[in-house]
Amino acid sequence: MEKYYAENRERFLNELFSLLEIPSISSDPAHKEDMHRCAARLKELLLAAGADKAEVCPTEGHPVVFAQRLTDPKAPTILVYGHYDVQPVDPIELWKSDPFKPEIREDAIWARGANDDKGQAFMHIKAFEYLVAKGLQRHNIKFILEGEEEIGSPSLAKWASEHKDLLACDIMLVSDTTMLDEKVPSINCGMRGLSYMEIEVTGPDKDLHSGHYGGAVVNPINALCGIVDRLIDENGRVTIEGFYDDVVELSASDREQLARAPFNQEEYNANIGISEVDGEKGYSTLERTGIRPSLDVNGIWGGFTGVGSKTVLPSVAHAKISMRLVPNQDSEKISQLFEKHILAHVPKGVKVKVIHHHGGNGFLIPISSPAYKAASRAMTEVYGIEPVPSRGGGSIPVLADMQRILDADPLLMGFGLERDCIHSPNESYLLSQFDKGLRSIALFYKYF
Amino acid sequence: MEKYYAENRERFLNELFSLLEIPSISSDPAHKEDMHRCAARLKELLLAAGADKAEVCPTEGHPVVFAQRLTDPKAPTILVYGHYDVQPVDPIELWKSDPFKPEIREDAIWARGANDDKGQAFMHIKAFEYLVAKGLQRHNIKFILEGEEEIGSPSLAKWASEHKDLLACDIMLVSDTTMLDEKVPSINCGMRGLSYMEIEVTGPDKDLHSGHYGGAVVNPINALCGIVDRLIDENGRVTIEGFYDDVVELSASDREQLARAPFNQEEYNANIGISEVDGEKGYSTLERTGIRPSLDVNGIWGGFTGVGSKTVLPSVAHAKISMRLVPNQDSEKISQLFEKHILAHVPKGVKVKVIHHHGGNGFLIPISSPAYKAASRAMTEVYGIEPVPSRGGGSIPVLADMQRILDADPLLMGFGLERDCIHSPNESYLLSQFDKGLRSIALFYKYF
Repeated sequence: MEKYYAENRERFLNELFSLLEIPSISSDPAHKEDMHRCAARLKELLLAAGADKAEVCPTEGHPVVFAQRLTDPKAPTILVYGHYDVQPVDPIELWKSDPFKPEIREDAIWARGANDDKGQAFMHIKAFEYLVAKGLQRHNIKFILEGEEEIGSPSLAKWASEHKDLLACDIMLVSDTTMLDEKVPSINCGMRGLSYMEIEVTGPDKDLHSGHYGGAVVNPINALCGIVDRLIDENGRVTIEGFYDDVVELSASDREQLARAPFNQEEYNANIGISEVDGEKGYSTLERTGIRPSLDVNGIWGGFTGVGSKTVLPSVAHAKISMRLVPNQDSEKISQLFEKHILAHVPKGVKVKVIHHHGGNGFLIPISSPAYKAASRAMTEVYGIEPVPSRGGGSIPVLADMQRILDADPLLMGFGLERDCIHSPNESYLLSQFDKGLRSIALFYKYF
Repeated sequence: MEKYYAENRERFLNELFSLLEIPSISSDPAHKEDMHRCAARLKELLLAAGADKAEVCPTEGHPVVFAQRLTDPKAPTILVYGHYDVQPVDPIELWKSDPFKPEIREDAIWARGANDDKGQAFMHIKAFEYLVAKGLQRHNIKFILEGEEEIGSPSLAKWASEHKDLLACDIMLVSDTTMLDEKVPSINCGMRGLSYMEIEVTGPDKDLHSGHYGGAVVNPINALCGIVDRLIDENGRVTIEGFYDDVVELSASDREQLARAPFNQEEYNANIGISEVDGEKGYSTLERTGIRPSLDVNGIWGGFTGVGSKTVLPSVAHAKISMRLVPNQDSEKISQLFEKHILAHVPKGVKVKVIHHHGGNGFLIPISSPAYKAASRAMTEVYGIEPVPSRGGGSIPVLADMQRILDADPLLMGFGLERDCIHSPNESYLLSQFDKGLRSIALFYKYF
């Protein structure tokens, strides 16, 4: 394994760069063609790696790439899930190098998608190549790589329902998450769900002069700020009626287990440049991001936002607001509760519209499962430390759907690090994690 | 007068269009050359109208245009103030015609600046032309037309201080405001002042993934919404400590006088497409916009504002916030109180910066002054109704400075109407108001 990986490393990186150079931003219709180019390139790479079948399959949205190499009908089947779409790159001026001209510096790969998820998904293709090349493939291996994860996977669940036989598997293997630290490997055994909403507040039917009307006409930005401010109370709890109804309170011993994860609040703060954290009273930082739901404004805009000043009382203001949910909270139900709450608290003098973006439920994976144990053994061998079972704050809502449709648990072997800035300018992926990831994945197949 | 105006009307409109075609947006550095073009065109028009001196004068910002024609050192001197700069045009997609290709439809002139203030200032040049052409000029007449009114006139006060002798006058004559209604002429006898501020709230030093950090890291947009929401209390009063200290409460009889102005709340609401007004408890709509101070968010932005969704916990959020002040409130003092209040209430986990934009004090004009009386008589003759003395909600902060520097009262004969949408898309100016304004101004000189 060491020899194969070492001899082929330069080619591996060149192939990864050929993926990173394609600006496959799924949220922007202008990049529709890039999505197809990226999918086609993945098909090429999968065939070259040894797949005996690889297809770019149309969906109602961007295409999915499916590939497989089957060995023995009686052997377990592993479905590798990944995604080839990436987040937008704005604010572009903060990037130190072109997000779509990947480069290596400071022992890392710098590009949009270097980690999330092109870099991580690519490791699985190369580990698969190694198994095939060396005649070590014992399991049936399938790949499903989608192009809509960053926009909430609107098409995959439907496509998967229609192709259940093709995707049939015993477990799903996914690298699209982070480890607690470079020196503290971890395996995600639970993810939060998501409800992504938008509010539009309309006051007067046109922009007005704030001098002539200010004081008498309700300003939609002020009104929106009031709505947002009252969504979280002084104890850091979301005020939406029924929001916590389905949240399962963890037992004291479960919370103790979670607290075993190494964590340094000062380092955490320093890493993101804040003086202190704040959130729901009575919970630690890891609990706030792992086992508790949360609510964040992801974007807000209205009125004059250019250089200088304009004395306008605007007609409209908008906010994109998302909620992270914990297992047992239903995304659809929470989205409805959100809308009901907002519409029940419309300020005087304005109209409010609630728009539903995407959502998905969270999930949990048993630590006692054979797949979890094999992954843990593989990573222990590569990192020299037994990985910590952790709870991820992010959401891969589609995995909850896939788990339901395919009746197979997802196993989240993530090799990203917090420092990778995956949704921000200057996304990167450490070469050392790339190398260790390749080895961990190959060993997983050995021990499973 | 009627004959002269009728014979020359087509030429007048063509000359006005030549001004409206120049995109003199003072807030946008890209239009610096247009400011010079517009000033040069005004100089031409003033010389052609009969000025024996007209100059484009450099300032620290955009140039001012000065012109004069003096008759008799013993006669009163009138200084006409106006401005040739205009507001930005965004959102451009809402305009029904190009903002800088003026056109006449539905008995109105449509263009950015058609009213504010190219259209209104131009009437003064043409009334002056008429007086000169007919040998009727009895007063010394001066013009000062600036190019920075829409950005708070940062240069004019200094320039005026250095040119006090040149600008020396008995009254300032200004058409840059609105009348109560087409059928209810009014003269503004007081204007609100302004303090224009900006808040920048910074959380983490980079944009974060809202799934990984949401719930533990304070979101600067949520924090900004809280700051804004708490600036106005449940009674519609601004919560800044000391904000109302210098506000003079009007007597019951003063409030009765003000209440005589014809006003229909239903029409007001329908005109701007709102279901109801709201503001400081205990005051009417005209009081809220005329004699009471107010606070409005003029613009807000932060995070992801593009199409679709992005699960980001942003690093920074901004709001532009302006306060309208009443006479006796000092703009500089209020700006300081605002900053002090904001910095005394910084939410946990974020940093807050306060930026001072421009400001200026409000002012009042005695109704008993000869200039007010002459204007009232002139407008009564043209409109057939005695104008109502009103209080304007907007601000022309520079006029308060000029009043102080030149020791001369401003007289606000405004011919705009609410329907003109002066800071919004589709600015217009009714031809009937253009015609009546020309006549009212000529008659003012007759009766003063």
